[in-house]
Amino acid sequence: METLETIRKRCSLKSSISPQEIGAEVIHAVLDAARYAASSRNHQPWRFVVVQGQSAVQALVDAAVSGTNAVIREAPVVIAVCARPQDDSISNGREYYLFDTGMAVANLLLAATDFGLVTHPMAGFDEEALKRHLNIPEDVRVIMITPLAYPAAGSYDEAARERLNQRTRKAFEEVVFFNRWGETQPASEAIQA
Amino acid sequence: METLETIRKRCSLKSSISPQEIGAEVIHAVLDAARYAASSRNHQPWRFVVVQGQSAVQALVDAAVSGTNAVIREAPVVIAVCARPQDDSISNGREYYLFDTGMAVANLLLAATDFGLVTHPMAGFDEEALKRHLNIPEDVRVIMITPLAYPAAGSYDEAARERLNQRTRKAFEEVVFFNRWGETQPASEAIQA
Repeated sequence: METLETIRKRCSLKSSISPQEIGAEVIHAVLDAARYAASSRNHQPWRFVVVQGQSAVQALVDAAVSGTNAVIREAPVVIAVCARPQDDSISNGREYYLFDTGMAVANLLLAATDFGLVTHPMAGFDEEALKRHLNIPEDVRVIMITPLAYPAAGSYDEAARERLNQRTRKAFEEVVFFNRWGETQPASEAIQA
Repeated sequence: METLETIRKRCSLKSSISPQEIGAEVIHAVLDAARYAASSRNHQPWRFVVVQGQSAVQALVDAAVSGTNAVIREAPVVIAVCARPQDDSISNGREYYLFDTGMAVANLLLAATDFGLVTHPMAGFDEEALKRHLNIPEDVRVIMITPLAYPAAGSYDEAARERLNQRTRKAFEEVVFFNRWGETQPASEAIQA
């Protein structure tokens, strides 16, 4: 799919998960996309634990995921996104393990969308329980988890349609300023105005 | 461009910046892509200050960017990526303003690459000086800056070729584990082995 189309169509779809298995080569390609992300001084702090197979996914959910997020128990794959803070830059208090891993995860989510797969990044889980369950070292943080699945019915586009129609985003003018904070018009337009 | 191709071709190219102006609609599309990113509880903490025009960019660089990063003074556009930590979730000490803004920035970088534009995310700048210069509020953090420019000579592919050939990434097996930390084989292969 064209890049801008994939960016526009990616959305969070935990309500539309099929237990259908995903081929190993597709899982590999989705995770491989994450590796190409930029990172501060090329530190590449991201690590991924791919939990696959019905019993492994259900055991993970039973151990560390509750509430509405527990619907991911139907997924054939759940990915736990991890990083060690000291594996990346810390600049003026800004911890780049989070920022850089965010860039890698965006690649992963877009690659999954391109393959017609459903994702749903979640920050809500029991981090300590999840780390114990997956044998993750004490100094590694688990930043988020996402299911990876084919949509429950129909194509990705069909599964995403309602969600995309309901999606809300801040207006462009709320998040983009020109030449100084709070200025919503590009300089040339401001001069013409 | 196809999504996976864009993901593979995106690289950091501060050494190949043309001063050629970029159309307003292209700048808009690149920033718009960032808005579609996922974020924790849809907080959308990201904010972008688009510095454009030769004199504005050079004044920004003089104020807040030094060393090898100062080569971005040739760019027609520099984007300062900002966020307020309290505008997003903080879960078990993990500050999602960084992670979520990372996801938005990945969208932005990929959209730019798709338009044949050069980017180069940089964490090295004088944050306080940059905030004063752009009138950014005290409680907002500047996470990174990137030039946005056409390549200095030829197409994006020509500009990126050498950089991509030299690019280094950790091996897949170093960053992806299966079902438990440190396990480099998928479960089914492990069983077959």
